[in-house]
Amino acid sequence: MSVTAALGFVASGVHAHIRKEKRDLAIVRSVPLATGAAMWTQNRVLAAPVVVSKRHLESTEPQAIVINSGIANAATGAQGEADAIATAEHAAGLLGLAQEQVLVLSTGVIGAPLPMDRMLAGVDAAAAALSPHGGDEAAEAILTTDTHAKTAVSHGFGFTVGGMAKGSGMIHPNLATMLAVVTTDYPLEPGEAIELLRPAVDVSFNSITVDGDCSTNDAVILLSSGAAAIQRTPATDEAFVLALRTVCSDLSHQIVVDGEGATLVAEINVSGAVNAAEARAIAQRIATSPLVKTALFGHDANWGRVLMAAGSAPFNGGYAHVDPNLISLSYNGTAVLVAGTPQHVEPNVDGAVCTIDLDLGLGDGSAGYLTSDLSYDYVRINAEYRS
Amino acid sequence: MSVTAALGFVASGVHAHIRKEKRDLAIVRSVPLATGAAMWTQNRVLAAPVVVSKRHLESTEPQAIVINSGIANAATGAQGEADAIATAEHAAGLLGLAQEQVLVLSTGVIGAPLPMDRMLAGVDAAAAALSPHGGDEAAEAILTTDTHAKTAVSHGFGFTVGGMAKGSGMIHPNLATMLAVVTTDYPLEPGEAIELLRPAVDVSFNSITVDGDCSTNDAVILLSSGAAAIQRTPATDEAFVLALRTVCSDLSHQIVVDGEGATLVAEINVSGAVNAAEARAIAQRIATSPLVKTALFGHDANWGRVLMAAGSAPFNGGYAHVDPNLISLSYNGTAVLVAGTPQHVEPNVDGAVCTIDLDLGLGDGSAGYLTSDLSYDYVRINAEYRS
Repeated sequence: MSVTAALGFVASGVHAHIRKEKRDLAIVRSVPLATGAAMWTQNRVLAAPVVVSKRHLESTEPQAIVINSGIANAATGAQGEADAIATAEHAAGLLGLAQEQVLVLSTGVIGAPLPMDRMLAGVDAAAAALSPHGGDEAAEAILTTDTHAKTAVSHGFGFTVGGMAKGSGMIHPNLATMLAVVTTDYPLEPGEAIELLRPAVDVSFNSITVDGDCSTNDAVILLSSGAAAIQRTPATDEAFVLALRTVCSDLSHQIVVDGEGATLVAEINVSGAVNAAEARAIAQRIATSPLVKTALFGHDANWGRVLMAAGSAPFNGGYAHVDPNLISLSYNGTAVLVAGTPQHVEPNVDGAVCTIDLDLGLGDGSAGYLTSDLSYDYVRINAEYRS
Repeated sequence: MSVTAALGFVASGVHAHIRKEKRDLAIVRSVPLATGAAMWTQNRVLAAPVVVSKRHLESTEPQAIVINSGIANAATGAQGEADAIATAEHAAGLLGLAQEQVLVLSTGVIGAPLPMDRMLAGVDAAAAALSPHGGDEAAEAILTTDTHAKTAVSHGFGFTVGGMAKGSGMIHPNLATMLAVVTTDYPLEPGEAIELLRPAVDVSFNSITVDGDCSTNDAVILLSSGAAAIQRTPATDEAFVLALRTVCSDLSHQIVVDGEGATLVAEINVSGAVNAAEARAIAQRIATSPLVKTALFGHDANWGRVLMAAGSAPFNGGYAHVDPNLISLSYNGTAVLVAGTPQHVEPNVDGAVCTIDLDLGLGDGSAGYLTSDLSYDYVRINAEYRS
């Protein structure tokens, strides 16, 4: 059910012929007056839909989202921005909304223009198809090289959080982007959504990596219809925070499992860092190291590489603090290094999941990161685009 | 001739049985009283020989260098440091030097202890074999997964600079490390070597990448015997700077060409950045992007990936400045993007060398970076270690 699991939402996914053989255009809409927020890619090269949607979000609360796959509408200059605006304008007209209430997202090839005739005809079809049962079709329409749809739902007592996501690398043939839309019927005040979304994204979508590449189009959007018939209390607020985090974590985990060429998912847990920010920098450095990731593909602990990566984590213009004499490291619970002393054991890393626990012994900063391995298939998927 | 091309140097490379089938222990020595300097890995996890050699270099001018391959003596705790000291001490005794005049370098497996009986016997053999013709054997002894020895010589008017290097990734089976030793007979004052070495390394060894991984053992050492019979003038000083840079660039280029699994070398030239530091950050980000590197392996420009990488170059806790509307980009001289406008042409990237010129149009900061592609063989070399 994904984005239509919560009350008050309709969605659809249609084939607008932007891509050859699959649904490629989705609309998600809150029927009651909604409130919402978004987090965007930090890339300096912003795609046109990101530029336009950020502007819309600054002027009013979002009500509907139009998403296409196949063309990213990035690096498309002034025409790209005009196309993104025209899409929002067209959808707004059909849905009886102001243009600024519509957000637009795109994912696909960078540098190519949107085929606007097909795009607008697709918006027509998608608007006509909007339904409280359209969540799964919408989740399908946003995919690019993903091998399957990614949806998640969490039910609280009297409310629901649901979502859909796509992303499996920054992606062949540069089909950029990680996109996620999370909807809820939990009632939120205007301005409140971003405060709730940010911490949930930090520990989920911002704590995963497939290839360390950050696209021009990445976006996570939270929309609340407020349609749940409940009275908010501190206890329900807490339950909502948990449900939101659950959905974000579930979706981001699915992205890593479906990572391009992935045969293994590794959970990197860093503890004992000077502070949480340094722990995060170190976890990210390990999670993106090609040497760590190829070792994981070989089901080989090869733990010296984790140390190498930990010792060279960029932080504040230098490197995060690490003292090799204090480090303890274990794979799947087997210690290979204890306070700097090698244990001369070989841990079992044969499975499809590997947990790497690194304790730096310096402080109480901790952070986690999910990553996939670097396989032949990753190279194939990303190199064999020309035929 | 490598490190023995310059007057005043002797060297040797022997088989100490640290590795099974090749020379694995080298000594380089200046016969006259030498002066020198070193640049070390920035990794926070320093190998024992790096810790010991840094200390030695702080107390006196270096006179000789002992290098072994096969075992990195990294993540080996207190025993590792004692082993590095014992190696320097043993060599110093044989060579009639103070222990502090001997530097030690290691490259190979992380986490394993040095086999000290074989190590010291190897030092005996290498000391006995020292010869003005031993440069090539020394260059061979320091290799790990390199497919061939890397040496370079540049002759100035009345002086010579020569060097050897190893490195082709951070390396299978985590045979860490980029090592380089450059020798010259050009007379240098104590303390002067580091001032000359630093800028030469910045544009050579510090501007290349195979996999973005920075080892625990990286080192570049410059030794001057002062044996050339010339009178220094500003003109000879300039010639020396040029020769030193030539040797460093030549060696670093050889490292990239011999990069693990490399089928292509790409030269990334970034211009028009806000300043040189941001240009460098952007060039490095492009040069290390798995998506850019797999595209190069596929001989596919796929230039959106270069934009994606350029827009997400970490700098000072944020990202380097990039304005997508001002970017111009070309491959091998063919412009694919001019001031933000796609040119809809497909550049030829079929060769073994690819030049990528990125002009950000913001300022006059520029920087260059050499990188290799990311191939199946890179994954194979780094994953298929267990047999």
